[in-house]
Amino acid sequence: MIEGKNSIATRPVSKGNSFLTSFSTITGNELPEKFVMATNEEANEAVEKASAAFVIYKNKSGEEKATFLEAIAEEIMALGDDLIDRAVMESGLPKGRLTGERGRTVGQLKLFAELLREGSWVEAVIDTAMPERQPMPRADIRKMLVPIGPVVVFGASNFPLAFSTAGGDTASAFAAGNPVIVKAHQSHLGTNEMVGHAINKAIKKCNMPEGVFSFLIGKGSELGIKLVTHEGIKAVGFTGSKPAGMAIYKAAVNDRKVPIPVYAEMSSINPVLLLPGKLQKNEKLAEQLAGSILLGAGQFCTNPGLLFLINDDHSKKLIDELITTVAAAPSAFMLNKGICKTYYKARKERKNLDGLDILVDGEDHSSEYKSSPFLSSVTGEYFLANRDLQNEIFGPASLIVECKDHAELLKAVNALEGQLTGTVMAEESDLSAYKNCIDALENKVGRILFNGVPTGVEVGYAMVHGGPFPATSDARSTSVGADAIKRFVRPLCFQDCPAALLPAELKNENPLHIMRRVNGTFQNSSL
Amino acid sequence: MIEGKNSIATRPVSKGNSFLTSFSTITGNELPEKFVMATNEEANEAVEKASAAFVIYKNKSGEEKATFLEAIAEEIMALGDDLIDRAVMESGLPKGRLTGERGRTVGQLKLFAELLREGSWVEAVIDTAMPERQPMPRADIRKMLVPIGPVVVFGASNFPLAFSTAGGDTASAFAAGNPVIVKAHQSHLGTNEMVGHAINKAIKKCNMPEGVFSFLIGKGSELGIKLVTHEGIKAVGFTGSKPAGMAIYKAAVNDRKVPIPVYAEMSSINPVLLLPGKLQKNEKLAEQLAGSILLGAGQFCTNPGLLFLINDDHSKKLIDELITTVAAAPSAFMLNKGICKTYYKARKERKNLDGLDILVDGEDHSSEYKSSPFLSSVTGEYFLANRDLQNEIFGPASLIVECKDHAELLKAVNALEGQLTGTVMAEESDLSAYKNCIDALENKVGRILFNGVPTGVEVGYAMVHGGPFPATSDARSTSVGADAIKRFVRPLCFQDCPAALLPAELKNENPLHIMRRVNGTFQNSSL
Repeated sequence: MIEGKNSIATRPVSKGNSFLTSFSTITGNELPEKFVMATNEEANEAVEKASAAFVIYKNKSGEEKATFLEAIAEEIMALGDDLIDRAVMESGLPKGRLTGERGRTVGQLKLFAELLREGSWVEAVIDTAMPERQPMPRADIRKMLVPIGPVVVFGASNFPLAFSTAGGDTASAFAAGNPVIVKAHQSHLGTNEMVGHAINKAIKKCNMPEGVFSFLIGKGSELGIKLVTHEGIKAVGFTGSKPAGMAIYKAAVNDRKVPIPVYAEMSSINPVLLLPGKLQKNEKLAEQLAGSILLGAGQFCTNPGLLFLINDDHSKKLIDELITTVAAAPSAFMLNKGICKTYYKARKERKNLDGLDILVDGEDHSSEYKSSPFLSSVTGEYFLANRDLQNEIFGPASLIVECKDHAELLKAVNALEGQLTGTVMAEESDLSAYKNCIDALENKVGRILFNGVPTGVEVGYAMVHGGPFPATSDARSTSVGADAIKRFVRPLCFQDCPAALLPAELKNENPLHIMRRVNGTFQNSSL
Repeated sequence: MIEGKNSIATRPVSKGNSFLTSFSTITGNELPEKFVMATNEEANEAVEKASAAFVIYKNKSGEEKATFLEAIAEEIMALGDDLIDRAVMESGLPKGRLTGERGRTVGQLKLFAELLREGSWVEAVIDTAMPERQPMPRADIRKMLVPIGPVVVFGASNFPLAFSTAGGDTASAFAAGNPVIVKAHQSHLGTNEMVGHAINKAIKKCNMPEGVFSFLIGKGSELGIKLVTHEGIKAVGFTGSKPAGMAIYKAAVNDRKVPIPVYAEMSSINPVLLLPGKLQKNEKLAEQLAGSILLGAGQFCTNPGLLFLINDDHSKKLIDELITTVAAAPSAFMLNKGICKTYYKARKERKNLDGLDILVDGEDHSSEYKSSPFLSSVTGEYFLANRDLQNEIFGPASLIVECKDHAELLKAVNALEGQLTGTVMAEESDLSAYKNCIDALENKVGRILFNGVPTGVEVGYAMVHGGPFPATSDARSTSVGADAIKRFVRPLCFQDCPAALLPAELKNENPLHIMRRVNGTFQNSSL
């Protein structure tokens, strides 16, 4: 059933003579299928086909693109359990989690379809002509967001469905009107192929230009960089490690004649402020936090890797409870060999630090590619003096920072690098008392949340899954939710454009009934 | 009257011992005032003051920021003719042009004040909680755009008022809620000081934190790079040459621990398609085009430096008319020595090209720092073979590309680099016949205009003054018009945020009566 080939413009290609395999942490072996790596010529061909398809695809209506996205969702569901089973083998994630992730993937596609049908996302703005204005007449000026061209999407290790072949980056790039070339993640090449073929079926069903989608197999440092530096590529979506993300980001600026935007989500330790009033009340706080730390073997971008508290009797009680809860966690398969190796290596490095107290040091299950939990603590002072403690440990690990007082907590928050999320665990009384810490946390994060856990990212209109560097390479963006579409567009202005040539979104009649800003005022009526 | 000092947080500073002067192309001499260059310590101090001011300024209401912007406009007007006279001496631009530019500068400040009072620019989005949702409840999630921190603005040579100290970059960064540090342009240091002091007065009048604004004197390659690479700086606005813009852009990515957005407007030759039906009708086309080419000695970012036409009898007639009109243009003072030197050097290089016909080659007035017009032509084939012909010549110069047919015109448009503007001169019949060329042009530009000239950029809600590289370093942005504010913000998401802590823009009551997207639907009512 698995062919092991690349796909360019819906056609299988396999001229290469180097191969990759997917390793299963569950079986402890390479899976039997061999996947042929794309040649340079094939990579070029995919970009050429995408560029040619762009000219057609960019002019598809919102309705047509919405139907296409829904067809992709249908074809993914039609793969049934085969897809889930393959993803389990390739990612080590449990079936329930992957079934949920499939729901999210399909949900994302449908959210963008809804956004396209409603249509206002293009941010249409119209300033009508003022021929009598003195000293100079005003021209008729209109603008809207338009697609930019072929986008490269890198599959992510930790979300083989929702952040990979037909994940959020692909869905938002398609929704914006751009062709997509997916660089499949080596960890789940079979899953990629199955989903890629589902997209190909949707292309045929919806009569889309075939070059609108290709997927290619290869190494990130070779095929990935080759694609990113190809002049036909106009933007990049990436989720993964900081070194890989920065290599792509810098290549897109330094190794291209024309630099392009790179949306790389890279690294976040998602600090949680456990404020004194909340600690006093407690209410199963340890259970809630441990659940988030251990979820999916800790392999979430929003895993709470840093817990801040101010020393008192209640904080000591919480730490004791956390130790008990976290230590009881069963070992769990990790996503791949590399992540497992890096996880235990990072733990070992931490254990060599003088100022660090080990609270939970689970057994080494690396021979089975399984994680065990790791919990440690430092003083606020030590945290402030050791910036490396902010490096992400990808896995079920968290670091407790015990601050001596309010002032030290504020300093620690101000010393944080950029984060996807920041969480405030607070009672009413804490909110006013620690207003400056909360304000400081806002400056560091893309999402601030209260009395919840950062894992479980909602896919909706208001979500921001982004944040200041190094959480992402571009704090202006979100990779989850409706506004993810804005990463792959640019504004285009039409001055005195004849009515016949205006896009529907900018016509006087407002045939799509979208919300527009007309001479400064929002309205969804016609002119 | 001119002090010749830097200003940090409204206070004059002058610890340095190196000086700059402004050269006047009108007098042919350095102006008498000496301006002391900022020391490294002073640059650091300006950033520290800006960072401290940010914590206060970012929480100012839209109303307070609007009043501040209007106060700046008032203080600029209060400078009266002294400001215009100084700007004339420093820029060589005529008084009428600078009076108009002052109007535009003040108009920009007022547009942003209007935008802030209306308030919807923050793009508030609210997804209300769904506690009963299955399988998981939905949290209350809200987001809006928030400011990012201190912005460095580089004064531009060609707009001493509208793109400099209190120009569009400064106005939009202030409007967004960010402190600004201006790196004054060496060509108009006196103008910078006068406008800078006007801003300082407005700060005091409006009780704004003093560190919200500083201006510093120095060289772009030293002081400019020093500021851009300072960790306290969060974004950069620049208008100028491509080499300078790219040096800043690359420094912001490669020489910083945390890369930041750079909005550099750099280079554009603003192609004009003169389509056959229009040429047949003609209607004073030569006069219209020549007026735009020669305006302000050709020193506009939107100067039409490239005219495309398809050879026929009508095109020959237009070229003859253009030659007559352009040749009759008087010489005019250029902005500064460097621009004048570069202009004549570029003309000389062009004259050495075998395939280029010289149509108008005005006398060399470089000894008086004056421009004369330059018009040349090439075949479409030669244009396609010589990419260097797309390099901008900053001054009253334009290149005619005579294509042999429709197909060659399409090829030429597809071969264009990114541009701020593209212009289509067309009759009704041309629009359908040359649809593919117009479509191709759209892909290359930030603004497409019909039967007008690209100079005279309107400051409004719908303007896009931006475009694909190398026109700008970031095609997602505009540096003119209301949306220029979006360059200096990022989205921030609030999950389950207690009502008391929510910004006014996100409160249930919608106290600012702004337009918001609530559960996917636009509304300006309360919840």
